[in-house]
Amino acid sequence: MPVVTSKRTDSINRLRAIEGQIRGLQKMIEDNRYCIDVLVQISAAQEGLRGVGKIIMRNYLETCATNSIRSKDERERAKTYDELMDVIYKFAK
Amino acid sequence: MPVVTSKRTDSINRLRAIEGQIRGLQKMIEDNRYCIDVLVQISAAQEGLRGVGKIIMRNYLETCATNSIRSKDERERAKTYDELMDVIYKFAK
Amino acid sequence: MPVVTSKRTDSINRLRAIEGQIRGLQKMIEDNRYCIDVLVQISAAQEGLRGVGKIIMRNYLETCATNSIRSKDERERAKTYDELMDVIYKFAK
Amino acid sequence: MPVVTSKRTDSINRLRAIEGQIRGLQKMIEDNRYCIDVLVQISAAQEGLRGVGKIIMRNYLETCATNSIRSKDERERAKTYDELMDVIYKFAK
Repeated sequence: MPVVTSKRTDSINRLRAIEGQIRGLQKMIEDNRYCIDVLVQISAAQEGLRGVGKIIMRNYLETCATNSIRSKDERERAKTYDELMDVIYKFAK
Repeated sequence: MPVVTSKRTDSINRLRAIEGQIRGLQKMIEDNRYCIDVLVQISAAQEGLRGVGKIIMRNYLETCATNSIRSKDERERAKTYDELMDVIYKFAK
Repeated sequence: MPVVTSKRTDSINRLRAIEGQIRGLQKMIEDNRYCIDVLVQISAAQEGLRGVGKIIMRNYLETCATNSIRSKDERERAKTYDELMDVIYKFAK
Repeated sequence: MPVVTSKRTDSINRLRAIEGQIRGLQKMIEDNRYCIDVLVQISAAQEGLRGVGKIIMRNYLETCATNSIRSKDERERAKTYDELMDVIYKFAK
């Protein structure tokens, strides 16, 4: 399922800020800034992406995962838990 | 110390590609794409940033860290290892 | 909810193996083994613990989380997603 | 190079504590303790192992890595940085 409207606006705003950080990083490297300063800024952009990932993960849990977990079909549910575990351990970092 | 020239070009090119991925992510969310597809793309951008981080980390080790490790002053060296451990465990993810 | 029986045996067996690895590590250090060998063994024990964590996480999703997600009370469900996100981002590494 | 004496005692003491935590985990599961409590304890043992890993990593940097970085042979140094990056990104989590 796609991302719900209220979360879409929040995600897009955060992604615009991250886009700005990535452009800032290019300038930092052009300007010969110190390694540690660059690493701090990379870390901030990674943290930003992690934040967007959390919004999307929660949306995934609230929509797709919930629908399947509510299903009465046991085989479908087993498949849902497989997918859920896969998604969680791949993306929840 | 700042990043050496050859690594600067490589880093900037990678950051430009990541900037494109971040813009692509905004479009994916506007276009109502599925959560999992969005999570995969976020993960790709994070992997890209990790790659740039590795270039900068290596530059840091080869320049700053190396100079201090070569120093004969024992106190300065101890301080270098403290900083080195701090940088490694904070940024090498 | 506690861990279901079939998963309990599997988890305990894995934990016994990890206990052996931890004792092995003590011997490696007493025996003056190389740092890299010790780091490899630490990494193996961490991977083992991660495996047990995945069993427990799946049990958590299949029991506690499922019951609350099925609840019709919207407020209870919102609380479940908060807890779920918290658990996932804290323990799914 | 092996681990220096003062760090060996510290590492072994920590590993003994972790061994106790792993045994405690087996009991928790036998005793039907709640999933979240088990996950918290697994997390504590992982944090403990991470602590031992940091001691060994620092020892590695102070001994092996330092010797090679001080070498005047440029080819040997390049190889050291390759190994160093490999060790750092594999084990510094």
